[in-house]
Amino acid sequence: MRILALLFPRFTAIDLIGPANCWGLIPGVQFQFAAAQAGALPMDFGGPHADIVATHDFKTCWQDPDVLLVPGGGRPAFEALDNDAYLDAVAHIGARAGWVTSVCNGSLLLGAAGLLKGYKAACYWYSRDYLELFDAQPVNERIVIDRNRATGGGMTAGVDFGLHMIGQWAGAPNGALTELLMEYAPQPPFGSGRPEIASQETLATARGILQGEMPNDLVAQAARRRGFA
Amino acid sequence: MRILALLFPRFTAIDLIGPANCWGLIPGVQFQFAAAQAGALPMDFGGPHADIVATHDFKTCWQDPDVLLVPGGGRPAFEALDNDAYLDAVAHIGARAGWVTSVCNGSLLLGAAGLLKGYKAACYWYSRDYLELFDAQPVNERIVIDRNRATGGGMTAGVDFGLHMIGQWAGAPNGALTELLMEYAPQPPFGSGRPEIASQETLATARGILQGEMPNDLVAQAARRRGFA
Repeated sequence: MRILALLFPRFTAIDLIGPANCWGLIPGVQFQFAAAQAGALPMDFGGPHADIVATHDFKTCWQDPDVLLVPGGGRPAFEALDNDAYLDAVAHIGARAGWVTSVCNGSLLLGAAGLLKGYKAACYWYSRDYLELFDAQPVNERIVIDRNRATGGGMTAGVDFGLHMIGQWAGAPNGALTELLMEYAPQPPFGSGRPEIASQETLATARGILQGEMPNDLVAQAARRRGFA
Repeated sequence: MRILALLFPRFTAIDLIGPANCWGLIPGVQFQFAAAQAGALPMDFGGPHADIVATHDFKTCWQDPDVLLVPGGGRPAFEALDNDAYLDAVAHIGARAGWVTSVCNGSLLLGAAGLLKGYKAACYWYSRDYLELFDAQPVNERIVIDRNRATGGGMTAGVDFGLHMIGQWAGAPNGALTELLMEYAPQPPFGSGRPEIASQETLATARGILQGEMPNDLVAQAARRRGFA
């Protein structure tokens, strides 16, 4: 199985590493990590930043992978909505991939690339409704599968998503095995991981931060530029 | 706050990325990622592998960070138990760090460096009891804090651990906020993430894989070489 991640600068690391660390436990899986240029590419955290090494560029990577994975991010994902070279690579390879997948705001990038027209999709909670601008149907679930599109919710949902897909690809016993190998018996310490269960104060603070990080005008602008009504 | 991760080849990526993606959301946090040499360093998954870029080597990195983080791994962590240059760096910097922390089998490396003598610690489920060879007391919990030692359980426990530490450092409201920002409302798809809840068949298969990955003779050999009784 050939898994290709298409990366943009300052993507959210765990959106990639969560599912990749799951899938890397399946024998025979191969990965490519492609960006505009091969070589060091900054991830979202660090001081000044942490780099991952892109193994390929958009032309030299697999053009028909078994799985395409697009990570998300905060502001950097919204800046990637303005990056036609990136979106064109997602569109071109996504049309030829066996599975088209994303974690977090990555579904907005799939959407802007035209790959979610008429599809149900998951997204990060704050920006989920933006999917409608790309003619996709937002769903408030941690994992959404619609035909060959498989999308995960925000950030940490990448592990749930990654394990779920192993069940799809290799059967439930292998999914259960990987869940044990990864010791995935989570204990969220604060019980505030979704807007529906967070306190009003926590939710208001988060919304205050995110309205600057994830502005809807960048999404509307991308939708117009990419030919959505 | 200065956070230093000491890395070895083919460490488990999510052991670093889980807590780092949490901590990167705190304003003012700075990171260094140090390895034997600065530059590209392979992580545990990929084909042939995925590289992260080490920003420093063991001499040029902070020698007295506020937080030292040591990730774990499968076989590569057990090979690192034989790497005295790595263990000496962990011992030297760990003695000067504000917090000494690990995820997964990283606690075995802290142990081999002599930093857990008389301390309680968490570890990956399969290898937890090996801690006793380093005079540490294994605890079957997802997060264990004993004085300034804070250790997380296996792989995915790094997110629980990372969020918990934000509560310690910046107060529960900031922990709750980060949990919402990361959308950490996990839904493990198979309910098998600990040996206590996995099926007998899943557990037997996992043990069969892990006994080759995590051999106790490498731990016993390290304990003898590092001067434990």
